[in-house]
Amino acid sequence: MKNDIDRLMAESGVETLWVTGPALHNPPMTYFTGLANLTHGDLIKQRGQEPILFYWPMEREEAARTGLAGKSVNDYRLLELEVLRQSGGSNIRATAARMLRIFDELGVSGPVEVYGHVELGPMYGVLTELAKLRPGVSFVGEEERAVLSRAMITKDDAEVEHIRHIGRIATEVMQMVADYLTSRPVAGRQLLRRDGQPLTVGDVKRKIRLWLAEQGGEDPEGVIFAIGRDAGVPHNPGTARDPIEIGKPIVFDFFPQEAGGGYFYDITRTWCLDHAPRPVEEIYRDVLAAYRHACGLLEPDTLCRTIQTQTCRFLEARGHPTLLNSPQTQVGYCHSLGHGVGLNIHEEPRFNHLEANGDRLLPGSVITIEPGLYYPERALGVRLENTLWARPDGTMEVLADLPLDLVLPMKSKASRAKGSGPPARTRKKPPARKGSSEAARGPTRRSKRAK
Amino acid sequence: MKNDIDRLMAESGVETLWVTGPALHNPPMTYFTGLANLTHGDLIKQRGQEPILFYWPMEREEAARTGLAGKSVNDYRLLELEVLRQSGGSNIRATAARMLRIFDELGVSGPVEVYGHVELGPMYGVLTELAKLRPGVSFVGEEERAVLSRAMITKDDAEVEHIRHIGRIATEVMQMVADYLTSRPVAGRQLLRRDGQPLTVGDVKRKIRLWLAEQGGEDPEGVIFAIGRDAGVPHNPGTARDPIEIGKPIVFDFFPQEAGGGYFYDITRTWCLDHAPRPVEEIYRDVLAAYRHACGLLEPDTLCRTIQTQTCRFLEARGHPTLLNSPQTQVGYCHSLGHGVGLNIHEEPRFNHLEANGDRLLPGSVITIEPGLYYPERALGVRLENTLWARPDGTMEVLADLPLDLVLPMKSKASRAKGSGPPARTRKKPPARKGSSEAARGPTRRSKRAK
Repeated sequence: MKNDIDRLMAESGVETLWVTGPALHNPPMTYFTGLANLTHGDLIKQRGQEPILFYWPMEREEAARTGLAGKSVNDYRLLELEVLRQSGGSNIRATAARMLRIFDELGVSGPVEVYGHVELGPMYGVLTELAKLRPGVSFVGEEERAVLSRAMITKDDAEVEHIRHIGRIATEVMQMVADYLTSRPVAGRQLLRRDGQPLTVGDVKRKIRLWLAEQGGEDPEGVIFAIGRDAGVPHNPGTARDPIEIGKPIVFDFFPQEAGGGYFYDITRTWCLDHAPRPVEEIYRDVLAAYRHACGLLEPDTLCRTIQTQTCRFLEARGHPTLLNSPQTQVGYCHSLGHGVGLNIHEEPRFNHLEANGDRLLPGSVITIEPGLYYPERALGVRLENTLWARPDGTMEVLADLPLDLVLPMKSKASRAKGSGPPARTRKKPPARKGSSEAARGPTRRSKRAK
Repeated sequence: MKNDIDRLMAESGVETLWVTGPALHNPPMTYFTGLANLTHGDLIKQRGQEPILFYWPMEREEAARTGLAGKSVNDYRLLELEVLRQSGGSNIRATAARMLRIFDELGVSGPVEVYGHVELGPMYGVLTELAKLRPGVSFVGEEERAVLSRAMITKDDAEVEHIRHIGRIATEVMQMVADYLTSRPVAGRQLLRRDGQPLTVGDVKRKIRLWLAEQGGEDPEGVIFAIGRDAGVPHNPGTARDPIEIGKPIVFDFFPQEAGGGYFYDITRTWCLDHAPRPVEEIYRDVLAAYRHACGLLEPDTLCRTIQTQTCRFLEARGHPTLLNSPQTQVGYCHSLGHGVGLNIHEEPRFNHLEANGDRLLPGSVITIEPGLYYPERALGVRLENTLWARPDGTMEVLADLPLDLVLPMKSKASRAKGSGPPARTRKKPPARKGSSEAARGPTRRSKRAK
């Protein structure tokens, strides 16, 4: 949490943090500023002191709204202009000169941790130039050991409320999508739009984007809505022209962000409209069982890699290849179990099985649990994912819930008769359907306070 | 343009470009991949050769869709795992080991230009590590001199069509906003929502976001919709709770992007609903005249700094302070005249007046022209902006047009009587109004092919 920063700095012997770049879509800056319309800023946080935000004069009012102590870079403008003139227009040298002056004013020395989601080349130039000009200062930025990454591993109550808020939006939109799909008319196996044309993945994605905007979210990282064979490749986002058909698996992985670059939520459901073919049903059961099994292992302070290893063994026992027994597999269970969620869609803790992964499940973390199974050659893919908060009392809470059901029964039975194509062949309920629906409801309720 | 890359590499003696990071919201990667759902990739472009995309195995299908030659990083996985084990889990060292192997396979040596909109710290670590391991390789990334920045300065026809497309969306949404505002009932001076409550800046921004999503755009950089005093501070995005009132200047600066991280458009209008007070009218006339004056200077190969200098002199002659005669001013004309627009909202060429700015207006560039005047203490701010394409034939074209009018007459005269507050005091048309409206229409038509 934010109030761990000074302790973490002391523990790692880091005297200074330097965050650079805009306040929007730049998690380490947003962590300090909140959502603010700053297109560029530099924030210096020294151990035991309040952070200082160096802002552009045009953005002085937005800088003031952050509530942070601030200083205008206009104060260094003449220095920069002089360096620009001398260097024949090198912005890298001008920026380095400004930062050196700021370091001197603040007495910065020793290792400085650098942060910022920015264009790499120019900042690499600035850091290299600074290290040359001031050999006493060095720059470090190791992803998983950095102070801010470690602070962000646990969330304070205000942050959890943000994640809960965007979670509510995410599940609301997913419910709208489910309602929309199940009320479409069907011709043959294809769902139809209002104009009688086949409904496509592209159409559904446009609806998702619209409904999300309406609710105050955005999806800068895209959305996965992949049907059939595409569902069998974990990061395949879906093919826009693919028609939506009954009886095919749809992997709907939704990871929206609060509008403007705030907190993320991450949730996946796998749906079959009307009915699920037996092979989908079978791997769905295995994924659901793996999800329940993993949730049962979420004890405070457990090593995250252990939970992934156990999940691999659980799925291997059911006959699936995993990254544990086949490190290069692209079928079966071929990704890690989850990740932290916050201002970044992927952050600490990590749930890979590698021995080097020392992350533990700390109270206060917000994580995803998302087992999946993939067999693209058989047009099979299933993933189930929830975002869970490790509460301070040691229990887990799904922050925004939605049924885990595989089969979404079509509401529009009557309208199907109006379809222009041949009647669907597999109209009768498959025998496994009811079972799966019940199996799905169980863990949903349980995982609300899994453990 | 993209097909200048090899020539530009030869000119600057750069043998290799390395672009890292996702394909979404990462302009240098998107430049090569198009919009693709790659959460991470490394692209190596050697002079005279086709680029090669190194992708994650889970994203092999999206990588294939880009049409680029590709290779899975799975081929280096065992190497990375070994380095991770030896280094106690350093992702920086593992990544450096993989890239070193790739460099060796491709015979990379000499200066490598690095690109990518990514988290700075870890990549600074990787580059530092690589430079240590292989002293023959060095990394450079100067913003304005880099090969890709210089290639991106001019756009090919396909790119111009993308910008025109999002421009059409931008102007469509702005027209919807204008229609919405002018058809609101008014009570006192305040516009009302359907539920009778005062309409606020926050309400309007929600509408903008929704209508933009509906049209297939997104606004990752936010939107400026600032009224009254806020309009007087260039980057003030507007205060959500501010009521929308007639007769106050509204600066509406809209810079949406094709959904998913494509091309941007950038356009600003300043509006007064119902009527404009004389001081707003006066600075509006000066800004409009400055816009027309600047458009008249847009000859191919002109130094961009000259156009800014001339614009400063033009506004100084009308009594306004500018960055030319008052380098630290925060009132008057206190920003540069424009910038290139493409996959980045701000790119080359730059239109500041500094001697070090050697950018010229090249045929093929897409730029903004956006003079403005700001006096926040008098609640005065006006900016007018269009995005223009410097066509290969030497003429300029506004890529998506919208009237430049200051005053938006209210359509809802009748409904105003229904307003619950006192009647608006300044109901009669101010004398300057008709003039301004005509003045506004002139340059709109002319600038469609300004020059």
